[in-house]
Amino acid sequence: MARTIDLTPIGVVRSTLRVRGNAPRQAFEGAPAATLEIDPVYEQALSRVTPGTELIVVTWLHEADRDVLQVHPMGDERSPLTGVFATRSPDRPNPVGLHRVRVIGTDPPASVHVDALEAIDGTPVIDLKVAMNEAPDA
Amino acid sequence: MARTIDLTPIGVVRSTLRVRGNAPRQAFEGAPAATLEIDPVYEQALSRVTPGTELIVVTWLHEADRDVLQVHPMGDERSPLTGVFATRSPDRPNPVGLHRVRVIGTDPPASVHVDALEAIDGTPVIDLKVAMNEAPDA
Repeated sequence: MARTIDLTPIGVVRSTLRVRGNAPRQAFEGAPAATLEIDPVYEQALSRVTPGTELIVVTWLHEADRDVLQVHPMGDERSPLTGVFATRSPDRPNPVGLHRVRVIGTDPPASVHVDALEAIDGTPVIDLKVAMNEAPDA
Repeated sequence: MARTIDLTPIGVVRSTLRVRGNAPRQAFEGAPAATLEIDPVYEQALSRVTPGTELIVVTWLHEADRDVLQVHPMGDERSPLTGVFATRSPDRPNPVGLHRVRVIGTDPPASVHVDALEAIDGTPVIDLKVAMNEAPDA
């Protein structure tokens, strides 16, 4: 079960959000627009990603604490300790982030500009998928 | 950008689905119930994952072809070739799977029984998150 998977990021988030403490918990809490700088070797994989496309951006929350197993949900100490798998805490064993965004533009060869994204500058991007019928943050 | 991330699965899918060709594309297309065998070292991270909890299961689609950059959506040759980042194709550079499920039961120390899941037996599980207000497959 513990076999390691090698995962190479496909790109990186460029954002005015620089510090984790300043990032909103969810995009609808006031996150800024951002750019996904995708490695140009994946240019073909971006065909038909166009303005208006709704994407799920899968990130690696590289500043997360991977040893945390329980948290107070939403950082509220009055909430009982809860297993991280029953929360959206960024701190968790494999800190995968899921962010629903709308594409607002693209620049060749492989930059994608998106609306509200609550990930900080430098966050690795590991996958992009078209969103299905999903709500603000998947 | 190309720095490698080391990712250790937190568990594995146990399912009657054994062969990729038999797996439905989406859970609502008739996927069977399945069990998430989570590594017991993460038992605490499962607290408050209980029957009725809606989870996003993040998997690593280990049989995917990571060299595929474009596909005909839904496997329909009449659809134009489309970049995998604008699709839900399992074949993609980092084959992360997102599956929305409902917990139907748990067994100590760390097994979680879920309803319809379209991943085959042996698929590594890399993360679990509580679902927010999302539709069938995230």
